[in-house]
Amino acid sequence: MERLKKYKRGDAFSYTLGAFPTFELLEAAPERAESILFHPDYDGKEKLIALAEKQKVPVFEDKKTIERLSDKGNCFVAGVFKTEYTPVLSERRHVLLVNPSDMGNLGTIIRTSAGFDGTDVAMIAPCADPNDPKTVRASMGAVFRVRVAVFDSIEAYLYAYPGRKLYPFMLKGSVPLGEAGKPEGDYTLVFGNEATGLPDRYADMGEALRIPMGNKVDSYNLACSVAMGLYAFSELVK
Amino acid sequence: MERLKKYKRGDAFSYTLGAFPTFELLEAAPERAESILFHPDYDGKEKLIALAEKQKVPVFEDKKTIERLSDKGNCFVAGVFKTEYTPVLSERRHVLLVNPSDMGNLGTIIRTSAGFDGTDVAMIAPCADPNDPKTVRASMGAVFRVRVAVFDSIEAYLYAYPGRKLYPFMLKGSVPLGEAGKPEGDYTLVFGNEATGLPDRYADMGEALRIPMGNKVDSYNLACSVAMGLYAFSELVK
Repeated sequence: MERLKKYKRGDAFSYTLGAFPTFELLEAAPERAESILFHPDYDGKEKLIALAEKQKVPVFEDKKTIERLSDKGNCFVAGVFKTEYTPVLSERRHVLLVNPSDMGNLGTIIRTSAGFDGTDVAMIAPCADPNDPKTVRASMGAVFRVRVAVFDSIEAYLYAYPGRKLYPFMLKGSVPLGEAGKPEGDYTLVFGNEATGLPDRYADMGEALRIPMGNKVDSYNLACSVAMGLYAFSELVK
Repeated sequence: MERLKKYKRGDAFSYTLGAFPTFELLEAAPERAESILFHPDYDGKEKLIALAEKQKVPVFEDKKTIERLSDKGNCFVAGVFKTEYTPVLSERRHVLLVNPSDMGNLGTIIRTSAGFDGTDVAMIAPCADPNDPKTVRASMGAVFRVRVAVFDSIEAYLYAYPGRKLYPFMLKGSVPLGEAGKPEGDYTLVFGNEATGLPDRYADMGEALRIPMGNKVDSYNLACSVAMGLYAFSELVK
């Protein structure tokens, strides 16, 4: 096997570091899995090998590579996965993130989205890298459970998925989240960048919502805002 | 002034690193502020000095100390604050965290709690340190806007704040969050550790709630769970 290098954005392959996301890769997206590596001290190797063989993914004992890829002493399992695939968003609800910058937030959002009926996630570039091992780890492997697609502009997203109702989440949104009406058709919850939020023009693209907030803070954490939005809409449409 | 050392848990003083939490310290908890330091290149020094003088907190230009405390080149302001104070929780709603381990999660939760009517936060030890600069930073300074109290055991908390209705959030909670009834008196939203959740015995201490979750994930991020709980209850009681 070719010597594996640390992941850099744009590489054809990235890595799951740790047992949990690696099992998720094998369970949910075996077609993207290139190979699985484990440390000789890993105590779950029988289960791992059995699953990899069932999914027809090559599996190797390779202590050196795991240590080089992970930088950490406590990583015992890694998966090599293809970063290139063509996600076609198909669920009734999307989460759309405009220029999210933090990989921890992005992974956490993907995890929450997967929990709410496998809500697919779209992003407008520039944005955090959904394939980076940090994002994969923060998602607890949920990045393999939902589709994640990146668009060059909001116009490109709207062209690809026309006719959807947009709910931009904005600090100055005119409608409190709890008073949003039940959406009739396909819809998208839209969130801005961690530091700057959504540009003002998004208010005119749909029904601008605001999450209740007293005067003790200026904003909420992005991943928390998305969680509140997903929870509220899952109650609305049930 | 005595040479300031990097913060270690249990120290009498800790630090706000960065302008935002330092302004929050001065605005919201000047009685805990010992001194304020700024880098000569900081471009907001006039506003900072004016606020510090108004709040009667000594302010110094001290490039070396800021660089030593922060480890980062992009920190231009720091505040020194007393870690010892006696928080008396007084709001109708509490968030209670049982053994939270991650300072980023803890800070994020404090930020969300502050946003929902300044909900006070209690914790059961062992727990992440609410005074660590990492927690303070993740809270965006909201740690100075709500009271944060640590208890040795759940019994110590219940003894200090008797007669409250408890809502333990559990994966196997018997009541979906959206079907919780409106609480009549004082109440507490209870959340477990990131990896292990709440021990089973918590189910008998109150009305055990579960957040809707499909089969694509095993759990939600702790800070996201708290955000969904706070949002849902803020809607219930309004």
